[in-house]
Amino acid sequence: MTVRHETITVESHKSEETLDITPRVKAAVTRAKIQNGLVTVTVAHTTAAVFVNENADPDVQRDILTALERMVPRDAKYEHAEGNGPAHIKAVLIGNSVTLAIRDGAIALGTWQGIYFTELDGPRERSATITVIGD
Amino acid sequence: MTVRHETITVESHKSEETLDITPRVKAAVTRAKIQNGLVTVTVAHTTAAVFVNENADPDVQRDILTALERMVPRDAKYEHAEGNGPAHIKAVLIGNSVTLAIRDGAIALGTWQGIYFTELDGPRERSATITVIGD
Amino acid sequence: MTVRHETITVESHKSEETLDITPRVKAAVTRAKIQNGLVTVTVAHTTAAVFVNENADPDVQRDILTALERMVPRDAKYEHAEGNGPAHIKAVLIGNSVTLAIRDGAIALGTWQGIYFTELDGPRERSATITVIGD
Repeated sequence: MTVRHETITVESHKSEETLDITPRVKAAVTRAKIQNGLVTVTVAHTTAAVFVNENADPDVQRDILTALERMVPRDAKYEHAEGNGPAHIKAVLIGNSVTLAIRDGAIALGTWQGIYFTELDGPRERSATITVIGD
Repeated sequence: MTVRHETITVESHKSEETLDITPRVKAAVTRAKIQNGLVTVTVAHTTAAVFVNENADPDVQRDILTALERMVPRDAKYEHAEGNGPAHIKAVLIGNSVTLAIRDGAIALGTWQGIYFTELDGPRERSATITVIGD
Repeated sequence: MTVRHETITVESHKSEETLDITPRVKAAVTRAKIQNGLVTVTVAHTTAAVFVNENADPDVQRDILTALERMVPRDAKYEHAEGNGPAHIKAVLIGNSVTLAIRDGAIALGTWQGIYFTELDGPRERSATITVIGD
């Protein structure tokens, strides 16, 4: 069994943005030379997140951020004094890690699935850890 | 260490539905002959999801879908032109994978917990990957 | 490769509360003597959850519970007769497990990240399983 980590740097350019990191996660799996196992992407920030969803129509990504804004409105009352209260809550709703199967050397993603790093309080330089475990 | 995958087919019969796949995940763990490790269930669709919650009162499952509809209302405005915009957002909120401990040959689920495949844009034939890793 | 489980007991004192279990998860990783791998924290309850977010300003934790109450209001209509319908839904939104990288003997958490057990229908005595897998 092998365990292999890679850290990637992600640069966001807006206050809120989803960034497709699928090719970089795939490359890390290839470099790990693992045929079967799991890959976990972990975000070490409290106002960023990661999820898996549609990679074809960019409108889906916009809809996701709009819906989150509707659920966690900027103009509601937050105790946290830094002004980024909603970003923390959205990060909890999305989650700070995803775990996916690696099968016969490839990530078991569907045709329309991509892995999206989610900036919720940018723009900033961010990072994510890709961990591959398996045989 | 062993890694073992199984793909299961899940057939949904409604536009939105939660389907208990616990017995099928348990069977995959038994077939993998692993005593201690992790099991991950991954959904390779962008309008379906998977979660762990109450298996006793079916009203809980109905409440979950009703609450999601309230948070991501069908009649709000979505850019995505296919009409299933809310399904994508609900899928992101629930998540496309769950990871659970395998301890002494059994999944470490509570008495009232089941694993639910969640159809959000059905009815359709769907699939999920069950990955077991451990000793 | 090693797999090691620990069960921790968590006592909540309010109906809703987030409890920092980071030191206990770190201690379990140290005891497992694993340098590289994954750690998964699993909650075997249907009205409790676990997430990773800010450990510095306690206002963030309060904001998270307030925002969830706004999204899943206590006074909406729920079919589930036990009165804790919202707790089940909030548990699904947050999730019942987190998976994090272990790198060079330490959990790959950011400076401001903590692991929070989330009570949603307390006060109660609860438990969580910590599973460490790796080399």
